[in-house]
Amino acid sequence: MAVGANENISKIPPSYLFRDIGNKVLEFTKNNPDKAANLIRLGIGDATLPLASCIVEAGKALLDEMSTEEGFAGYVDEAGISDVRQAVSETIYNGKVAADHIFISTGSKEDSGSIGDVFSTDTPVYVTDPVYPVYVNTNIMYGRSNIRLMECNAENNFMPAIPESTESSLIWLCNPNNPTGQTMTTAELTAWIDYANKTGSIILYDAAYKSYIRDPELTTNIFDIDGAQDCVIEFQSFSKSHSFTGVRVAWVAFGDGVKIINSKGEESKVRDIWNGRQAYRTNGVSRPLQAMALKALSEEGMKSSREQTDYYLENAKIIREGFTKLGMDYIGGDNSPYIWVKTPKGMSSWEWFDYLLENCAVVCTPGAGFGGCGEGYFRLSAFGKKENVIEAMNRISGLSL
Amino acid sequence: MAVGANENISKIPPSYLFRDIGNKVLEFTKNNPDKAANLIRLGIGDATLPLASCIVEAGKALLDEMSTEEGFAGYVDEAGISDVRQAVSETIYNGKVAADHIFISTGSKEDSGSIGDVFSTDTPVYVTDPVYPVYVNTNIMYGRSNIRLMECNAENNFMPAIPESTESSLIWLCNPNNPTGQTMTTAELTAWIDYANKTGSIILYDAAYKSYIRDPELTTNIFDIDGAQDCVIEFQSFSKSHSFTGVRVAWVAFGDGVKIINSKGEESKVRDIWNGRQAYRTNGVSRPLQAMALKALSEEGMKSSREQTDYYLENAKIIREGFTKLGMDYIGGDNSPYIWVKTPKGMSSWEWFDYLLENCAVVCTPGAGFGGCGEGYFRLSAFGKKENVIEAMNRISGLSL
Repeated sequence: MAVGANENISKIPPSYLFRDIGNKVLEFTKNNPDKAANLIRLGIGDATLPLASCIVEAGKALLDEMSTEEGFAGYVDEAGISDVRQAVSETIYNGKVAADHIFISTGSKEDSGSIGDVFSTDTPVYVTDPVYPVYVNTNIMYGRSNIRLMECNAENNFMPAIPESTESSLIWLCNPNNPTGQTMTTAELTAWIDYANKTGSIILYDAAYKSYIRDPELTTNIFDIDGAQDCVIEFQSFSKSHSFTGVRVAWVAFGDGVKIINSKGEESKVRDIWNGRQAYRTNGVSRPLQAMALKALSEEGMKSSREQTDYYLENAKIIREGFTKLGMDYIGGDNSPYIWVKTPKGMSSWEWFDYLLENCAVVCTPGAGFGGCGEGYFRLSAFGKKENVIEAMNRISGLSL
Repeated sequence: MAVGANENISKIPPSYLFRDIGNKVLEFTKNNPDKAANLIRLGIGDATLPLASCIVEAGKALLDEMSTEEGFAGYVDEAGISDVRQAVSETIYNGKVAADHIFISTGSKEDSGSIGDVFSTDTPVYVTDPVYPVYVNTNIMYGRSNIRLMECNAENNFMPAIPESTESSLIWLCNPNNPTGQTMTTAELTAWIDYANKTGSIILYDAAYKSYIRDPELTTNIFDIDGAQDCVIEFQSFSKSHSFTGVRVAWVAFGDGVKIINSKGEESKVRDIWNGRQAYRTNGVSRPLQAMALKALSEEGMKSSREQTDYYLENAKIIREGFTKLGMDYIGGDNSPYIWVKTPKGMSSWEWFDYLLENCAVVCTPGAGFGGCGEGYFRLSAFGKKENVIEAMNRISGLSL
């Protein structure tokens, strides 16, 4: 006799990719204490450069304020402090998304799960394969079973094909892509936007790695594209642009015309439904963190972001050059911090993971962890320290592959 | 043509009580600029005392660390930093809840909504009336329609009666209570625990105001009671104990024996299901905030909490004494920062709200906002500055009621 379970939760894999990797690495370092000191982690996409000092000072100043009678403030608007929303609107979207369509949050992982709250559970969901596992598993937790995989492989240059379905669907696109590092041109994004508007679909656009785009032909603001206002919900975060992975500030930006429909045929703006949801589900983002986010969006903060992303892109270049010399196939790493590499000698993703760990003490992410099409690939992250990236590539170059 | 809506969301009220109050107050201050400066807010339960300096220094020190190469750290365990979990276990639960059964989060509002993820949607949910609206509305958003109100009124001393049902249910209890300020004795809590264990029910125990308990006869650790391990999930937060309403750190503590059952009859520990859910739904709580939480749990931090809660309880005493003199009926305010007062002259809750705002420039919370049984009552919060509380009570005493 007990309360019933939400049985959808038990449909998700009992373990999470990055937890599995963590456990494997832990075991390796226990069994090989001599190699533990030389371990180089290029698996998870976690920032390694310290926070910019201007951002830290902004957080400290706000904390100091909150320790005074006059400066203390309690509950914060759950949608975000208006100055921060305004700064995102201006700095990131050049005003093309209004401040009241931007909702500050504690993370894109959080948002990309929570957004599922507003849609009917029978909505089809398109995701790429390989894919960031959170999109898929949070939908499964909601009871969505109509999940459609869009294969991305060498044959289609790791670019998902536009579906033939005419149904209104949710479409997850991550650009620059995690895990493949592939990027979409403005023409390719335009085709997706046209498809979404033709079918009444919504693009859930994960732009977490936007700050790595250097090619001027690639768009850095999807809302510059005609029709995006009617179909795009964008997820962005300070994690990869400002080393905020352990600080936790992100946002969702809603195109003004993005709508859902109920069974009576009545339409609502998704922005409005989200606004209502947030009132009951959150008390917003910590004040000192929002002060840090505001500084991150200042000229000084954006300059620090450019320096940090340049540094990681230099790492990516070192990785790409290494694999080019080795004659191994890869994509990504030019406008993205991820490099997606074919395993040598037909090894499986996890075979290669183990091989690389044992022989080079280097941690990668096995492609199979991102879906069936990831089998036979691995992801290297450029988020390490430069000297470690150089050393890792030296070790890999020394393997007899 | 558009993506379908989650129609459960539109079943919740389009506005949120504290937003409504905020809008009413905004209108009042616009129309009465002369009175705006003298407005006293005793509505929302929001801290007004500044953060303790030891806590602020801990946050600043962590931020300084994160601005250095050596001290920087990225992603954090989504369940919480182990030192913080351990400190909660020891300081709050005297070891009766293990650290790995404690999950650090960004807020109890967040947790009390999210916990619904793990239970079947057809589970009956018991809530008191009056009640904190978030429990009810987040369940409605999940599609739970079997919500059962337990009336709390002057006849039953604002104490919910134990249901006669033998079904396995979810039971929300808030103790000390928001909004009534009523508290349960150990014997009363024991009766609930026995009922829950007899019926396979789970008590969702909101202990946000626990640090206001002064009566040594009242329990401050529900896990001290026999059987609590098998049926209690406790929600707690630093918001009301350490002025963290705008800082945002809280936790959920799971009794080790709390289980759910699937349709095959297989049982799982709710703690384990939650652990799995968190891996996909969050990247945890910001590092500087967890450093602040850790300091909050230190001897120095707990001493500052005691001083702050003593201050608010002194306010509560002033409010109680004022209403006693006026001969108005009330409860709460002795082991709680809330005082629940019967409106004079049979006014409705919102009539009194308007009357009090217009005649005294004092903001209260209308009882009807907490449910049908709240009609004819209002809540005053003791979270103001002492001089404001004295002034508010002087103004109220001057009314010809």
